[in-house]
Amino acid sequence: MPDKVRIALDAMGGDHGPEVIVPGAALAHGRHRDTEFIFFGDSARIEPALSAEPVLKAVSRVVHTDVAIKMDDKPSQALRQGRLKSSMWQAIDAVKQGQADVAVSAGNTGALMAMAKIHLRTMAGIERPAIAAIWPTLRGESVVLDLGASIGADTQHLIDMALMGSAMARILLHIDRPTVGLLNIGVEEVKGLDEVREAGQILRERNLPHINYAGFVEGDDIGKGTVDVVVTEGFAGNIALKSAEGTARQIAGFLRAEMKRTIWTRIGYLFARGAFRALREKLDPDRSNGGVFLGLNGIVIKSHGGASASGFSAAVEIGYEMVRDELMAKIGQALVPEARVVAEVQDQSPVAGAAS
Amino acid sequence: MPDKVRIALDAMGGDHGPEVIVPGAALAHGRHRDTEFIFFGDSARIEPALSAEPVLKAVSRVVHTDVAIKMDDKPSQALRQGRLKSSMWQAIDAVKQGQADVAVSAGNTGALMAMAKIHLRTMAGIERPAIAAIWPTLRGESVVLDLGASIGADTQHLIDMALMGSAMARILLHIDRPTVGLLNIGVEEVKGLDEVREAGQILRERNLPHINYAGFVEGDDIGKGTVDVVVTEGFAGNIALKSAEGTARQIAGFLRAEMKRTIWTRIGYLFARGAFRALREKLDPDRSNGGVFLGLNGIVIKSHGGASASGFSAAVEIGYEMVRDELMAKIGQALVPEARVVAEVQDQSPVAGAAS
Repeated sequence: MPDKVRIALDAMGGDHGPEVIVPGAALAHGRHRDTEFIFFGDSARIEPALSAEPVLKAVSRVVHTDVAIKMDDKPSQALRQGRLKSSMWQAIDAVKQGQADVAVSAGNTGALMAMAKIHLRTMAGIERPAIAAIWPTLRGESVVLDLGASIGADTQHLIDMALMGSAMARILLHIDRPTVGLLNIGVEEVKGLDEVREAGQILRERNLPHINYAGFVEGDDIGKGTVDVVVTEGFAGNIALKSAEGTARQIAGFLRAEMKRTIWTRIGYLFARGAFRALREKLDPDRSNGGVFLGLNGIVIKSHGGASASGFSAAVEIGYEMVRDELMAKIGQALVPEARVVAEVQDQSPVAGAAS
Repeated sequence: MPDKVRIALDAMGGDHGPEVIVPGAALAHGRHRDTEFIFFGDSARIEPALSAEPVLKAVSRVVHTDVAIKMDDKPSQALRQGRLKSSMWQAIDAVKQGQADVAVSAGNTGALMAMAKIHLRTMAGIERPAIAAIWPTLRGESVVLDLGASIGADTQHLIDMALMGSAMARILLHIDRPTVGLLNIGVEEVKGLDEVREAGQILRERNLPHINYAGFVEGDDIGKGTVDVVVTEGFAGNIALKSAEGTARQIAGFLRAEMKRTIWTRIGYLFARGAFRALREKLDPDRSNGGVFLGLNGIVIKSHGGASASGFSAAVEIGYEMVRDELMAKIGQALVPEARVVAEVQDQSPVAGAAS
């Protein structure tokens, strides 16, 4: 573990660019003095923003890049135009080259995942990466994955996600054996997809280290905080996240309209302002900002594209925690042979030998 | 169209049984005098409840059954024990025999769908049924399907759901050509599952009657009311519904706690009571109670198991509307040859003839 956590930032990612990324980094540095930063992007925009933050500037380095990935570029397009020379690629490359411990970008998710996968590659023993996020619940916080890194999941991928998600939850929740649930429709063991059923059986039987398998959970269990880690394939996970976000916005909209309807409700609003402020903070997507890419040879964090400086600082801090509490080592610990659905085949099997 | 809408009720379904089902029917009848009821279940419990509702009693008939399906019976178990003789089966049978126009049950969803599928069978041209519900949105209401009738969907099933959902939306929203969106992750045409992509292409190109195809939508578009009909396969649909319900409950919980925190917020609550009442009503799951089983030879409505009498009456009224506005005929109108992904194969193909 190095003295400092070295953070590579894609300064051009997101809706706002360096004017938000730099102050966001300053906020994170204010809370964690053991951080250093490398900003990748247009130095003509980064330098002035950095000059306004002298404390941050003292621990930062700027690497100029000419190319910025656009928010609506398709992954294939982003790779064609941005490989090697974009701020996004270079931030990932800094992790690859060991110059940084983590890369953070508010850029386009598809492009970031595509570049991270191609350049960092998946860890030995993990076939597909996943995106995990922190989900505020009635009980506190849970880790939910996959939020859209890939569609569909076989039994092995579900188990891999269970162990990667629990490694992340160990860091965030400071518990050694987080409870893990598989998202399903109906809590009976008989229902649902074959792979989900099989993964559930294996998790129950093999009793893996650092995984306290709690069975199937349903969509409404996520918000209740029934388990510490909720595992599902990326399509359903993304739909769950977005429909929860949509519902939260919808209720806020209803409530705003209702509180303005009469003189009495307006007075009520004035008295209860503190409660509404607390609710707003609780539901603030900036607070739990930061999707963690799991399963790659390096840590990459995705911030919301529209995050404010404070929101971006939350994503930087998740990256900081993942480095400080050694996410990679914790995933490594969880990757025990018993977590393989089918035992590894020997590299030099007698048959392969005979055939060659 | 008969004079009266004849409604078969599974009086034993749900958490409460006849003591809630009968008053629920009375509420629905109070709003729609052109209804008649057949109650299936334990007459010793139905009769006293019915005696308390003389107006309803005058248009009702009771058929005693000995067997009631339990809320936690597995579908296979329910079929073994409840086929022919349970209140649930008999309510469906009344539709099959033409004695009723619609069956409503608050019983176990899996059992109800299994019985409805076996006894009513799918409509000619439809391979799999779906469960659709009304989703309250910022704009009004939308129809969302499938909420869990089956897992996974091929291209044809997605298209069938688009046309069945739009038939239902024509009735509920009183518009001739509802907008239809396919649920996906990412709005770019390139993303997502092959079947979703192919269904989108066909819906766009073939420009089917009564379907105004609006493209892909994401999870947060459901609550916004971006389209009138949201189509997805049953796993993601169920997860979306449950995670939205969970989020609504979670926010209500937060808000309740915050409003009790200080003397000021308590005073604010008193002033703004009307707003909270309105919000509660808007989010009341009873209001949009009633899942419609689509694609069968007959109309079956599933009420929440825990619905109150008022909630159950909402499910009965959805059934009433579906009969009055001729759901079956509207689905029939939508089942045009151009809605087939692959053109129908002739019953007597030369090859089949040669082989026989």
